[in-house]
Amino acid sequence: MTGHNAPMDQLHRFTLADVAREHARSHPLADAAVDGDVRLTWPELDERSSRLANAFGDLGVRRDDVILWTGQNSHRVLETLLAAAKLGAVCCIANWRQSADELAFVISDSVPKVIIWQEAEVGEVVASARELAHDGGAVWVRHDTEGAGSYEALVASGSPIDPAQDIDSGAAVLMLYTAAFTGRPSGALLSHDAVLTQALMMAMLQEIDADYRYLNSGPLFHVATAMTTFATLLMGGCNLFTPRVEADEVCRVIATERCTGAFLMGPTIDQILEANAGGAYDLSSLRTFPGKPEWNAMITIDTSPWARRPAGFGQTEVMGMLTFNAMGEGATGTAGRPSPMVAVRIMDPDGNEVPPGETGEIVARGPQVMVGYRNRPEETARRQRGEWHHTNDLGRREPDGSITFVGPKGRIIKSAAENIYPAEVEAALNSHDAVRESAVIGVPDEAWGQSVTAIVVTHDGIEVTTEELIDHVRDKIASYKKPKVVIFSDEPLPRLGWPIDYDTLDELHGGGGYPGVG
Amino acid sequence: MTGHNAPMDQLHRFTLADVAREHARSHPLADAAVDGDVRLTWPELDERSSRLANAFGDLGVRRDDVILWTGQNSHRVLETLLAAAKLGAVCCIANWRQSADELAFVISDSVPKVIIWQEAEVGEVVASARELAHDGGAVWVRHDTEGAGSYEALVASGSPIDPAQDIDSGAAVLMLYTAAFTGRPSGALLSHDAVLTQALMMAMLQEIDADYRYLNSGPLFHVATAMTTFATLLMGGCNLFTPRVEADEVCRVIATERCTGAFLMGPTIDQILEANAGGAYDLSSLRTFPGKPEWNAMITIDTSPWARRPAGFGQTEVMGMLTFNAMGEGATGTAGRPSPMVAVRIMDPDGNEVPPGETGEIVARGPQVMVGYRNRPEETARRQRGEWHHTNDLGRREPDGSITFVGPKGRIIKSAAENIYPAEVEAALNSHDAVRESAVIGVPDEAWGQSVTAIVVTHDGIEVTTEELIDHVRDKIASYKKPKVVIFSDEPLPRLGWPIDYDTLDELHGGGGYPGVG
Repeated sequence: MTGHNAPMDQLHRFTLADVAREHARSHPLADAAVDGDVRLTWPELDERSSRLANAFGDLGVRRDDVILWTGQNSHRVLETLLAAAKLGAVCCIANWRQSADELAFVISDSVPKVIIWQEAEVGEVVASARELAHDGGAVWVRHDTEGAGSYEALVASGSPIDPAQDIDSGAAVLMLYTAAFTGRPSGALLSHDAVLTQALMMAMLQEIDADYRYLNSGPLFHVATAMTTFATLLMGGCNLFTPRVEADEVCRVIATERCTGAFLMGPTIDQILEANAGGAYDLSSLRTFPGKPEWNAMITIDTSPWARRPAGFGQTEVMGMLTFNAMGEGATGTAGRPSPMVAVRIMDPDGNEVPPGETGEIVARGPQVMVGYRNRPEETARRQRGEWHHTNDLGRREPDGSITFVGPKGRIIKSAAENIYPAEVEAALNSHDAVRESAVIGVPDEAWGQSVTAIVVTHDGIEVTTEELIDHVRDKIASYKKPKVVIFSDEPLPRLGWPIDYDTLDELHGGGGYPGVG
Repeated sequence: MTGHNAPMDQLHRFTLADVAREHARSHPLADAAVDGDVRLTWPELDERSSRLANAFGDLGVRRDDVILWTGQNSHRVLETLLAAAKLGAVCCIANWRQSADELAFVISDSVPKVIIWQEAEVGEVVASARELAHDGGAVWVRHDTEGAGSYEALVASGSPIDPAQDIDSGAAVLMLYTAAFTGRPSGALLSHDAVLTQALMMAMLQEIDADYRYLNSGPLFHVATAMTTFATLLMGGCNLFTPRVEADEVCRVIATERCTGAFLMGPTIDQILEANAGGAYDLSSLRTFPGKPEWNAMITIDTSPWARRPAGFGQTEVMGMLTFNAMGEGATGTAGRPSPMVAVRIMDPDGNEVPPGETGEIVARGPQVMVGYRNRPEETARRQRGEWHHTNDLGRREPDGSITFVGPKGRIIKSAAENIYPAEVEAALNSHDAVRESAVIGVPDEAWGQSVTAIVVTHDGIEVTTEELIDHVRDKIASYKKPKVVIFSDEPLPRLGWPIDYDTLDELHGGGGYPGVG
């Protein structure tokens, strides 16, 4: 599947398994993971992952086989990942919040050898998914219990001797399903190199070292949470887990464990402010983004490069961030500059680099790029054509070299010889004060192949003419991209969930004649 | 030679050549290199390295061929390295301070296709070396001139089109000769992966970003200088060059170019204090180590992890540092903890890991490790046996996981089944107040194979007995390592330059019966 697990040069090997092996030696007395009453030193985490790897091996798990985690956050996710790393297998962390139908799809699609599940919180969904799915005879292991058939029994059954296999650091070790805009999700296979390279970047930009204590209060099936988890792992810090993100529990763990980092969204911060209004919890160890004055008084304001200039452009298929504002915000670019270990190009559909100022697809190359999608040879070939990873997202190089994220690529309209990306025209339309939302389609045109039609929904009570909108677009982007026809709609745009339903718009407004997908 | 330059997976490739290609796009307006009157932006540096690569190709340089730089520091070292990177060739930076004999050895030994030299300062030595060496028909190119046959003419002759070859990041791109304690120096071949991994670590620990401006005031043929040069290159900062490290010139460049970093040794700092006593130069941009009060008032005190806890253990063969104090000083360890991307073990001569507290050879694995020594298959095999790089240095894991550097490995004495490292016994002896210097040899012993004899030179006028010294050693290290015989010598120990001449001591005192080299 991955095509990478051939014998490699072991002298230059460094894998996720080696991270655990090294910290077991370099930090023999330090916490590696804390999860409720469970507290594991590095030697304990390393040995438990060896036991688990050997137990997986006894169950028939071989190289490139998938072990599926369907539970909430737990130190056992780290153990499972490290066990997979020691075997050359792949740990897939599934979304435990998804429906039984969705989980059943992941089970059937990933063809796991072992499925780790839990009863608490998600037992019903898992049971329904198990009935719906084709699990291919996978071994089901419950982790939130003890005794025969449990995860803990499995760990105890395995030999503590490190399997010490020769694993290629370019082989997949992690799989994360990506939220496709339309159609079925795909499992992105991410290599040791991808996880470690991204982890180094996050460690550098978040100033993570062996003293870092990261509360995993975001979901581990999201790359945005996991990249900091792995940075903490790589640098020998401590990962702390809590299955539920409740304000009092989060405050308790931060205060008692002196956490230095956590993944906190706005609503959680508001709940914490309420829960800790009396100052019962000492949260001063937490280095994080500033916010309301009472929040700033409670925490330590993070001054790391990441905190000073957060975000950038990224996606699961590159194991997180491809560009960082912390690598240099541009005068006009919105996504900063590329991570130092990736090559980034803006390309037209023919695979030619476009000059600064022009919009094209963001493509990338380097160790962070996924191995491919599991069991999707055609989609993988499409995304990796020409030896570049195609992000399916549009971007632009600004004259100062910084990058602007334009929007998802979607379809291409071809007018004369020119490629027109609907997302770019929509962004220009949406920047007009009168426009609430817009969609752009291509209509067959005898002279030019296609012409641009815009469907526009205006804000209530704001008047705008077709000419005004066309002029507005022409001020923003190249003239050939401007709509020829603007259709004003009183109805909201049809959507498939969040994405716009372009097929319906084509049917309603005569769209068609699109070029083949590049 | 390197065995690596086979076609590789280009989707995941990232090489030193890619660094220049990326920064040309991401930092099109920024300085990449400044050298006297020469000021190159990233697009200029990238294009000049493409021209040079193509010109080298026209001269017959192919993959794994060596281009030898014999001049002082210059922006052209960077260009030559990047040109080599684009071709899959190897840039060797020779020591311009060495004698004509030594340089002749390097020329004959490295078998370069092209030799770049300069007339200023080192013209005479180079001319003598050229007469003494077998240069194998190498093309000689002078860089500190213009016109036919010059470096600048060569650059101008090459096509500006990037050769864009598919280069394996595991292949050698840099060669640095290492100072062997005895015998001939060897050229360590360092890969793109090695250079980039070490550069990432230095960028992280020295807090180097695209705004960093590094004055290359240390010699680039030393890895200790070069690792910061490459960190600056990788992060898109600016490297500044000056051929001579003279206080006024260093001050002028720092002040006018607002340098943020420089490689400054103690004597240079003293000269700067004198040259800038009147405050003529504004050196406040320089972030560096604190020193005398007047120095601290002149510069900005560096608070990076590297500055707060500098040094560690390293060597040219791992492209710099293997361990860093900044990764966690131990209670007793002297060399901190390993870099996060290397595996480190303490091994006995049979290739078994020794437990914490015991001395053995420091061995390593990971992307930083050299490809091998050029044209030294036997020494390479010896240093890379068992798929671990053997550093030839002794170390110890402390109980807290930190590492202590004990000393160079040298010979091994075998007494009963035990390995005894002379360096370890000598360190114990030397820690006694009475001892000025000591050397330990093995003497054939019918019962035990060998027994330990120490030759000791005491400080003038301090008395000490054999029994006192043996007791002292037994207090410090395992009892079986203590000397059986102590010979007091009134003469300094015989030395071959700096290293002790053990063969002479063996002859004088009956040494012999050493086990075969492991």
